[in-house]
Amino acid sequence: MSQPDDQLYAMRHSLAHITATAVQHLWPEAKFGIGPVVENGFYYDIDLGDTTISEADFERIEAEMHKIIEAGEQFDRFELPIDQAIDWAKQTNQPYKRELLNDLKRAGTTVAKDLDKDELGTIAEGDAATEKVSFYKNGDFTDLCRGPHVESTSKVGAFKLMRVAGAYWRGKEDNPQMQRLYGVAFATEKELRQHLNMLEEAKKRDHRKLGQELDLFSFSDLVGPGLPLYSPRGAILIEELKNALKDISRRYNMQQVSIPHLAKLDLYKISGHADKFEDELFRVKSHYQQEFILKPVNCPHHTQIFASRPRSYRDMPLRYVEQTMQYRDEKPGAIGGLQRTRGFTVDDGHTFCRVDQIEDEASMIAEIIQEFYENVGLWGQHWVSLSVRDPRSPEKYIGEPKDWDEAEIMLKTVSDKYGLDAKRMEGEAALYGPKLDFMFRDALGRETQLATIQLDFAMPKGFGLIYTDEEGQEATPVMIHRAILGSFERFIMLLIEHFAGKFPVWLAPEQIRVISVNQEEPIVEFANGIVEQAKELGLRISVDNDNESVSKKIRNAEIWKIPYTIVVGEKEIVSGEVVPRVRGDLEVQKSHQAHKVGDFLRTVANEAKSRVVKTSL
Amino acid sequence: MSQPDDQLYAMRHSLAHITATAVQHLWPEAKFGIGPVVENGFYYDIDLGDTTISEADFERIEAEMHKIIEAGEQFDRFELPIDQAIDWAKQTNQPYKRELLNDLKRAGTTVAKDLDKDELGTIAEGDAATEKVSFYKNGDFTDLCRGPHVESTSKVGAFKLMRVAGAYWRGKEDNPQMQRLYGVAFATEKELRQHLNMLEEAKKRDHRKLGQELDLFSFSDLVGPGLPLYSPRGAILIEELKNALKDISRRYNMQQVSIPHLAKLDLYKISGHADKFEDELFRVKSHYQQEFILKPVNCPHHTQIFASRPRSYRDMPLRYVEQTMQYRDEKPGAIGGLQRTRGFTVDDGHTFCRVDQIEDEASMIAEIIQEFYENVGLWGQHWVSLSVRDPRSPEKYIGEPKDWDEAEIMLKTVSDKYGLDAKRMEGEAALYGPKLDFMFRDALGRETQLATIQLDFAMPKGFGLIYTDEEGQEATPVMIHRAILGSFERFIMLLIEHFAGKFPVWLAPEQIRVISVNQEEPIVEFANGIVEQAKELGLRISVDNDNESVSKKIRNAEIWKIPYTIVVGEKEIVSGEVVPRVRGDLEVQKSHQAHKVGDFLRTVANEAKSRVVKTSL
Repeated sequence: MSQPDDQLYAMRHSLAHITATAVQHLWPEAKFGIGPVVENGFYYDIDLGDTTISEADFERIEAEMHKIIEAGEQFDRFELPIDQAIDWAKQTNQPYKRELLNDLKRAGTTVAKDLDKDELGTIAEGDAATEKVSFYKNGDFTDLCRGPHVESTSKVGAFKLMRVAGAYWRGKEDNPQMQRLYGVAFATEKELRQHLNMLEEAKKRDHRKLGQELDLFSFSDLVGPGLPLYSPRGAILIEELKNALKDISRRYNMQQVSIPHLAKLDLYKISGHADKFEDELFRVKSHYQQEFILKPVNCPHHTQIFASRPRSYRDMPLRYVEQTMQYRDEKPGAIGGLQRTRGFTVDDGHTFCRVDQIEDEASMIAEIIQEFYENVGLWGQHWVSLSVRDPRSPEKYIGEPKDWDEAEIMLKTVSDKYGLDAKRMEGEAALYGPKLDFMFRDALGRETQLATIQLDFAMPKGFGLIYTDEEGQEATPVMIHRAILGSFERFIMLLIEHFAGKFPVWLAPEQIRVISVNQEEPIVEFANGIVEQAKELGLRISVDNDNESVSKKIRNAEIWKIPYTIVVGEKEIVSGEVVPRVRGDLEVQKSHQAHKVGDFLRTVANEAKSRVVKTSL
Repeated sequence: MSQPDDQLYAMRHSLAHITATAVQHLWPEAKFGIGPVVENGFYYDIDLGDTTISEADFERIEAEMHKIIEAGEQFDRFELPIDQAIDWAKQTNQPYKRELLNDLKRAGTTVAKDLDKDELGTIAEGDAATEKVSFYKNGDFTDLCRGPHVESTSKVGAFKLMRVAGAYWRGKEDNPQMQRLYGVAFATEKELRQHLNMLEEAKKRDHRKLGQELDLFSFSDLVGPGLPLYSPRGAILIEELKNALKDISRRYNMQQVSIPHLAKLDLYKISGHADKFEDELFRVKSHYQQEFILKPVNCPHHTQIFASRPRSYRDMPLRYVEQTMQYRDEKPGAIGGLQRTRGFTVDDGHTFCRVDQIEDEASMIAEIIQEFYENVGLWGQHWVSLSVRDPRSPEKYIGEPKDWDEAEIMLKTVSDKYGLDAKRMEGEAALYGPKLDFMFRDALGRETQLATIQLDFAMPKGFGLIYTDEEGQEATPVMIHRAILGSFERFIMLLIEHFAGKFPVWLAPEQIRVISVNQEEPIVEFANGIVEQAKELGLRISVDNDNESVSKKIRNAEIWKIPYTIVVGEKEIVSGEVVPRVRGDLEVQKSHQAHKVGDFLRTVANEAKSRVVKTSL
């Protein structure tokens, strides 16, 4: 999101004022709420009484906005003492502004306790010393506002109104409902076009739409919201991702463990999650006076495996990894598709090690992350954050400053060693230690944090974990929390949208489709023979023997976005060769080359096994 | 368990009386509760006031019992009217007997509503017509009793008192606590010896003991009872079993699906589990007024995947399989080790098919069961039950009698086709359809039901599942529930105890241990080279480079019950050959043959891959 000191931020915020100006011209009775900058644009909350704005009104609102822009009105800043400001709100009949000003007078802030400060941050701010409030005026429109703005209405770049939605005043259901008018805005027309094209493309790639079309997952009213059911094709994505993670873990001598999905509340009291995650915990009621929690994380369970035996310095590091589901009681309104679910699978890992092993262990995880993201073609589309303490609030963090310093240096070393070029981000550390966060950009340019390496000095102490060091003394291990792909659900959403459903061969639910030119026995037999051969090689293949035209069957295979399609008839039986159709980025192309059936199948099997993103055929 | 009409039952029940007789001789103030037959023996509940019986008393109680047996006292049956019987209890100062008789007079039964009828079934039963009660007398001891008994105390076979434990009168915590004296009994001294040897062996093989020694699993007070945590070695057992099941499923064209661990209560209201399993359901509380249940079974979720798209007769059969955890709120007292847990993994499968496909589908599952149990060496150690309706209570079952008849015939056909020789067991069917249950005997002769194939006509109807048949009409699919190994927890318990921790190579957490004769660099390098080679082949191997004697290291490998151990030193480097030590049933034996390192590793890898039980080395 653009920041208050950016030019783009000022443009977007100025457009919010211009939107309100236009609305006031069209509906002079309009009462205004707030109009902040949001990701890619801005909005303004408006109360028009019984009048409802619809998308049909956007054209004339935009026309009015363009008039104001062309007029090149200056944004003039002025200040008023708080009481005069309240009078202004009274006289102009703006009750929402008046409420904000009264709050400001009383409490020194307009931000309601449970609201996001950023969202309300652009309205006027009281000056504690002078008790003055700032306003901005353009043409005939005045708004209380903290600023900044661009110089004049002509300097706002390119914009488009996108949608209107209901929104309660100050986000509270008891308050009046207003209309929130959203727009997107960019510095240039070209950037705006790019963004709108991206949105168009995102709509086509929407994982909920493709999830249904490709029969990957579904939701059931009887099972409940946020609890995805994976059909066989979707379960293959999960299984293949798990296999990829397990293969890597095995090679790096990490060890799979297995834990249940609940634990006594006591476990989370010690770990601190009972407090920290309270609103997101699913509580489980036993008939036998025990309080359980559905696990929102896995680290506390893993500490108990560490604690199940005496440990010595020679046993370390212990690297536990697991692909397991965890549960969080998300707000019904926040749930949607696979983006945010109540149950989600994670690839979680916890390394217990000595302080002198941190660097090697963190390095190993960095290598694993690189290898994994190369297999999905996202390595290179990333940047790394070295998330450290906020030096202004050291009290917010657990642990010894000395350990923190050492840990930061170690993570910096790892970053340098692997050319991660980590950007130091102050205040982004976890409560319990610094971390390296890996952000990846998908094909639409959207950025998501996926992988992480987090050092933790606090939890091992909290659980009293110990090992015997070389001197025979008790020592506390360090814990490294690591995620490679985060939540499988969110990752699968990203994969679906990134690849537009055209998964790399190793992930594709169906890798090859064999199409018979007719239902005659020798041809069907030949097709089935290919299937048998392919399955021996571990390939996912099916044969389409339906009584349909070959072109209809090819079209069907395209709809299912199958990487390879081969058509078999007399000719193929005689030659023993096939000419595969290869799924391209835009359409299926017929390969120019004929391949012996066995060669073709082995090539595909090798592509799947080595997890390549691009086909060589 | 022996049945009331068996001779063995009469022997064991007579021994309960003889125990009471002996106790009365030794402690004339003894008050007696009940003394039923249980598996392998009998018990008697006794109230001795402040006197506590301990195992130290067993010798003299047994000596007294032998006196009574040698005396050859007749068991004489007689009857008394109920009121005279109550007088008898009063005069002999037997308050517990008096309570039972008063209940019998009042309610016509002595069985408290929530008690197991079998446990109380051997005491006197009122004759509704005559209101008479039966008694048995031997020597100076009289007991109200339904019988039957052996002719005289000399005909009771061989016995041994085993233990004494506290037990509340009639199983209720508010009642007085009595002492329950347990004995085992068999027709011959030889059978008793065999049983005691088996118990001795079972103690050595106890999965809780071996689970700790071999670092397979643990429990944590903070996580909670009945919720096992699998250490890396134990997680390998789970993973390998899952892989074996997935491999078989893949070959048989079954499809993995994936579901969350909870669902709305509504789902289980429709399936009937909300009622049927009420006491075993973990209820999950959301902050958002929704009631969830931790899934106690998986079938209802799987119906929702079936229901997620329109289905046609050509889509069928749909075979969903999954290895997933489920949860049941077991009584704290019933939980122990892996035998009964609150969270357990199942290999669950549900096939949705047309009626004309039932036979083929059930056959396929029977084949899978055979293949899987051959891989763990239990095939042949089994019998199969064709569990059908109780013809006397047709009202207990859901569905059309015609469907039931047809389904029974189909299962019988499957049994004949695969030589399962299923024993027809009336009244053993599930509520919703007949089934084939597979019972397996372990190395100690204990029998467990593990696999099952169940036909279900009811659940698809309950959820309104439909497909379009060949005529374009709506039709209801049949569901086949199937389990191959049941609960992973119980199965792993069985494997641990059956193999005494000496798992077949494919399951062994560590398959090969390399022992270096010393820490010199060339030797350590050679050992590490073997490890690298073995890992390439997917083997689980470790190297013991510790500064210990070779014999100590060999002993260590034995303790961990590792199938193959190889010692490497100068000689092995020069020859490139190793002489593996092979774990035998009783002890580790040195193989007589030297093998090229590569050949040895490939042989072991092949054994693992083909999942053989016995080694060829």
